[in-house]
Amino acid sequence: MIARRGPARRPRVPVAVLGATGAVGQTFVRLLADHPWFELRELAASERSAGRPYGEATRWLEGTLPADTATSTVVACDPGHVRSPIVFSALDSSVAGEIEGAFARAGHMVLSNARNFRMDADVPLVIPEVNGDHLALLATQRAMRGWSGGIVTNANCAATVAALALAPLHERFRIKQLFLVTMQAVSGAGYPGVPSLDILGNVIPWIKDEEPKLETELCKLLGALESDTVRMAPIAISAQTNRVPVEHGHMVCMSVKLEERVSVEQARAAYAGWTGRQDLSRLPTAPRPPVILRNDDDRPQPRRDVDTGRGMAVVVGRLREDPILDLRLVALGHNTVRGAAGGSILNAELLHERGELPLP
Amino acid sequence: MIARRGPARRPRVPVAVLGATGAVGQTFVRLLADHPWFELRELAASERSAGRPYGEATRWLEGTLPADTATSTVVACDPGHVRSPIVFSALDSSVAGEIEGAFARAGHMVLSNARNFRMDADVPLVIPEVNGDHLALLATQRAMRGWSGGIVTNANCAATVAALALAPLHERFRIKQLFLVTMQAVSGAGYPGVPSLDILGNVIPWIKDEEPKLETELCKLLGALESDTVRMAPIAISAQTNRVPVEHGHMVCMSVKLEERVSVEQARAAYAGWTGRQDLSRLPTAPRPPVILRNDDDRPQPRRDVDTGRGMAVVVGRLREDPILDLRLVALGHNTVRGAAGGSILNAELLHERGELPLP
Amino acid sequence: MIARRGPARRPRVPVAVLGATGAVGQTFVRLLADHPWFELRELAASERSAGRPYGEATRWLEGTLPADTATSTVVACDPGHVRSPIVFSALDSSVAGEIEGAFARAGHMVLSNARNFRMDADVPLVIPEVNGDHLALLATQRAMRGWSGGIVTNANCAATVAALALAPLHERFRIKQLFLVTMQAVSGAGYPGVPSLDILGNVIPWIKDEEPKLETELCKLLGALESDTVRMAPIAISAQTNRVPVEHGHMVCMSVKLEERVSVEQARAAYAGWTGRQDLSRLPTAPRPPVILRNDDDRPQPRRDVDTGRGMAVVVGRLREDPILDLRLVALGHNTVRGAAGGSILNAELLHERGELPLP
Amino acid sequence: MIARRGPARRPRVPVAVLGATGAVGQTFVRLLADHPWFELRELAASERSAGRPYGEATRWLEGTLPADTATSTVVACDPGHVRSPIVFSALDSSVAGEIEGAFARAGHMVLSNARNFRMDADVPLVIPEVNGDHLALLATQRAMRGWSGGIVTNANCAATVAALALAPLHERFRIKQLFLVTMQAVSGAGYPGVPSLDILGNVIPWIKDEEPKLETELCKLLGALESDTVRMAPIAISAQTNRVPVEHGHMVCMSVKLEERVSVEQARAAYAGWTGRQDLSRLPTAPRPPVILRNDDDRPQPRRDVDTGRGMAVVVGRLREDPILDLRLVALGHNTVRGAAGGSILNAELLHERGELPLP
Repeated sequence: MIARRGPARRPRVPVAVLGATGAVGQTFVRLLADHPWFELRELAASERSAGRPYGEATRWLEGTLPADTATSTVVACDPGHVRSPIVFSALDSSVAGEIEGAFARAGHMVLSNARNFRMDADVPLVIPEVNGDHLALLATQRAMRGWSGGIVTNANCAATVAALALAPLHERFRIKQLFLVTMQAVSGAGYPGVPSLDILGNVIPWIKDEEPKLETELCKLLGALESDTVRMAPIAISAQTNRVPVEHGHMVCMSVKLEERVSVEQARAAYAGWTGRQDLSRLPTAPRPPVILRNDDDRPQPRRDVDTGRGMAVVVGRLREDPILDLRLVALGHNTVRGAAGGSILNAELLHERGELPLP
Repeated sequence: MIARRGPARRPRVPVAVLGATGAVGQTFVRLLADHPWFELRELAASERSAGRPYGEATRWLEGTLPADTATSTVVACDPGHVRSPIVFSALDSSVAGEIEGAFARAGHMVLSNARNFRMDADVPLVIPEVNGDHLALLATQRAMRGWSGGIVTNANCAATVAALALAPLHERFRIKQLFLVTMQAVSGAGYPGVPSLDILGNVIPWIKDEEPKLETELCKLLGALESDTVRMAPIAISAQTNRVPVEHGHMVCMSVKLEERVSVEQARAAYAGWTGRQDLSRLPTAPRPPVILRNDDDRPQPRRDVDTGRGMAVVVGRLREDPILDLRLVALGHNTVRGAAGGSILNAELLHERGELPLP
Repeated sequence: MIARRGPARRPRVPVAVLGATGAVGQTFVRLLADHPWFELRELAASERSAGRPYGEATRWLEGTLPADTATSTVVACDPGHVRSPIVFSALDSSVAGEIEGAFARAGHMVLSNARNFRMDADVPLVIPEVNGDHLALLATQRAMRGWSGGIVTNANCAATVAALALAPLHERFRIKQLFLVTMQAVSGAGYPGVPSLDILGNVIPWIKDEEPKLETELCKLLGALESDTVRMAPIAISAQTNRVPVEHGHMVCMSVKLEERVSVEQARAAYAGWTGRQDLSRLPTAPRPPVILRNDDDRPQPRRDVDTGRGMAVVVGRLREDPILDLRLVALGHNTVRGAAGGSILNAELLHERGELPLP
Repeated sequence: MIARRGPARRPRVPVAVLGATGAVGQTFVRLLADHPWFELRELAASERSAGRPYGEATRWLEGTLPADTATSTVVACDPGHVRSPIVFSALDSSVAGEIEGAFARAGHMVLSNARNFRMDADVPLVIPEVNGDHLALLATQRAMRGWSGGIVTNANCAATVAALALAPLHERFRIKQLFLVTMQAVSGAGYPGVPSLDILGNVIPWIKDEEPKLETELCKLLGALESDTVRMAPIAISAQTNRVPVEHGHMVCMSVKLEERVSVEQARAAYAGWTGRQDLSRLPTAPRPPVILRNDDDRPQPRRDVDTGRGMAVVVGRLREDPILDLRLVALGHNTVRGAAGGSILNAELLHERGELPLP
């Protein structure tokens, strides 16, 4: 599944997945199955699943579960039972706060998808291409919390799509105002998630707690690192979120006001060749390019474009003038890959390349 | 299908449908089947269909086609072949300009769904609850064009939903800026319309020619009649339109800036008891109320709310503060009923009640 | 919702719904809202819901919940708390056995949708048009069990559709072999039921425990009442069941072998004018006719035909020769109306007309 | 897209696609993009498209169209304009008869998806694993028709799925009777194909001309080559076909009677290790194994299993006793890959390996 790039084979780093039986947990298992740098050694889940073979404890949702993973015994989400120095967390926010903290305290590097720590001042909320430099917060975090490990979070799935789509514009022109309306896939709600009776042939104009996440996380993602803190980007944001009957892929319609008027051509130029401020060319799962600007009228579309860059790229389209602000555009990204498990893995790759991962 | 209200039975006015074999034409046939004021006498369509029984010339899309309608012979869309004084037009815009003009010239009152005449200065673009007074343009139209009949248009389906949802706010608080993002049902594209391979489990972020219609028609709908002309409402509008895998019902997410700051409570109050400036209580198909404000988090939804008021009411939900402008809200309406055939019929009812219909 | 036919207004019989908060329970509430013979007095559900207003205890799935029903207090599913002589049961089979038995023992007439008692020799499994005479088993039931009340069941939703579709053929020609392949709507699995991630754009070739129900219940439904017992119809049945992404309406493709070869014309004649062996013309919700045979190639279809006869009729189509057996046909019925709540209500109407309901 | 196996790189054989702009034509283009043995040189289509760049003449439906293919000029479907010795035909049956014949006469080897020649006695109808030996009919064909080229057809998409699923049983136990009910994806109808208004949330119990194809083609596919002719397999077949709202993947529910009673275990054994009677291990796109028997209750499913073996394998499940005949089972295959373009390509690979392809 995962392309192999990067340094010549060396011993792989053992990693664990917390919350391995859920939907995002499964995506971690799938994406890590064949990773050149990381070796999936431990699958951790709730007490109910611990001690059982993974293949029985989970209802595997897609493709074929590798045989050795299926027979692997699930362990409890407890630092006493998990030895891997790196843990990917797909835990629900109702338990993530306590468990992820315990792992960080015990020396593990936690790469978390939960919202619990995202907005803490000393916790990096990172998309490598957008704000990989924010990882520097880890030093403060360890100093302040006395942890030997650490926590790095990735953003809400829709916020991730929007941030990648906007970063080329923001870097060059500074975004001041942003209206977003999302159309989000059902896989964003996990499994069993959205009942089919609620969504077949329907749209639900509401996703619990989603709009505030978009309105705050984007300001941190697009914020600037200043010494040991992140200054929030001063963007006024209005978000409206909808669930649509799509399997994978969040769409975001945006209207954007920039610091000064720019033409559509200038905006297009900002996307050309953009790869972010970090050099990620050696990271195995970094998509090239990370953001693809399409010129056809009717793209992006979730079913046709969601797997672009193996689900790690964001596709932008319909870039045009906005009659009130400056620009309008539509963005699409894979919510469970780039917006969740794949995003965490890319964060771990960046840490690894910089030598910031704990040794086994 | 249609509730009976209004004056005691009197002879019904004969009416015809132009473009009767298409999707909107069929909706006309269904809605007129049992109308207390109008009697569907003539079904007109292209040369290809003329002379054939209606039941053979059309691929009937829903419910049961009444037997006498099925055997009725289709006539050509030519004023020489149609005698009904009132003609409802479901013609495609590629032919509507010429044919509708010919009918108006020949003394028929044309109620049109096509875009051709909508923005002409002397042509009423009418939603009875919103701007029924604009029908006064008919006098100018006749004077200027020398027609004995006339043309009254109804708006684009998504514009109709938005206009009804916004009218209570605009009347009281004056809208200055408006961002709309639509999620539109496949029936809006007619039949065969959107191929299933394009839309199953997908979203298409583009509908040909739709955004400019929204951005202009809304200003006319919400504009003010001044002597013999309509002054466009001075609203800056940004529209983005999407197709979603929903059968019927257009959803519109909106952010609104008003002339001055108003609270959500004041906005709610504007909806309470609102029935529009016209008294429509005697019109058989006028919904009561025309706009329903819901307070539950997750409504409106197309599948659950589209038939509210027999498809003639618009449902508004999620009315709340906007972080940048003043208010955010979501609206839903039935695109082929209120947004097309049903809207035309309501316009005809209003004309009839005012005695402005030609006599047979 | 329910048509009014039958005797002139008389005091309505008080009725209760057990399991009122679930999907089928809600359908009962909706169908009983305006019933001419029955008055919905009590809503019973699990201990978790008892004591709460119904509008809070349930997640209402469709249309508008009547205000007085929303504020009605839910009671426990216990004969000590329910006074209505008639109880409609939408209980899950995991609890239905015990609770329904307790109600029958306490003198209530229970109209059950659960599978628990369906195949008991002394329990009527009834579709009025097909085997209304089986209600005579009630006398045996009371004698054997010493109950002052009784239990009448209706069949599995797909079995109901098939039985109605086949009854005209079976009555005249005797069915000997039957192959069924179903395509069943998601509402058949209740709420939350089928996760959208499992069924969007997908088919699931398996419904737990469904095939044995079809293979046994059909033999009882089409069986003959002989003195105080039902002789199973000697039909060899092979059933395969599938879940499809449809909201309401179960489709059943069938191949049928009859006692002797009959032509398609003879088969068509068996459907003409068929209304079943009982005279149901005075029952308020009995559809006329109960089975509709269509001749167009591509019908029935769930979305277009499911509401035929207000969801109480079954639509049959594609009746044609079978290359191996005698006939092939496709049938469609509304699984939560005719196949569940509406079926129970029709059974109660038949009992009521015959004076077999307990008095309040 | 296509795995590389087979002999070491040698000059690739030039191939053309007829009907390259349609849905199946596009699948050919995608599957041939990177083929180790064949080089896609010419794209042919109707007069309307000839002379235009392929990227403009087609509405590309999935993924990214390679740049050099997009700029390639479409030629007319005329042997005078096409030089490649091998032509893959995705032509519609309305024109395939004449055009394919002309190409064969002119010395091209035609691999056809159209139904026109399939049942001709001297035309091979081939699935390599099932009846690759039927290619021997080519000699007769050339002799009888005086063609220097030839025509090899592949079967109807649903017939292909059924034939592969049944071949292991038929080879060992001889099938005598077969009931099939299909649930077919919308891509089987091409593009634009099925209108979304017809199929969203719906099932259509009819596909034009499909049932006779299943009932005849299966007998030829499973028939035995005897000297220079194919003796039809003596199987009585009853087929019912349905369209369901699924993008890709035809499901087939089957009940099977064998020459003598066999147990489910014996049937399972017939699948174990089955790879067909031909050795296809050197063919680049031959899936290994071609038929996968799953034991989980709820598989196969189109969305989860359709890409098994890169869309070239058929997945069988729910193998169990039939209460009337011997066995029941469900099969799934990719209708536009194995059931169309991919099937033709595999046929061409088999011909190539045997040295039966004309030289350039």
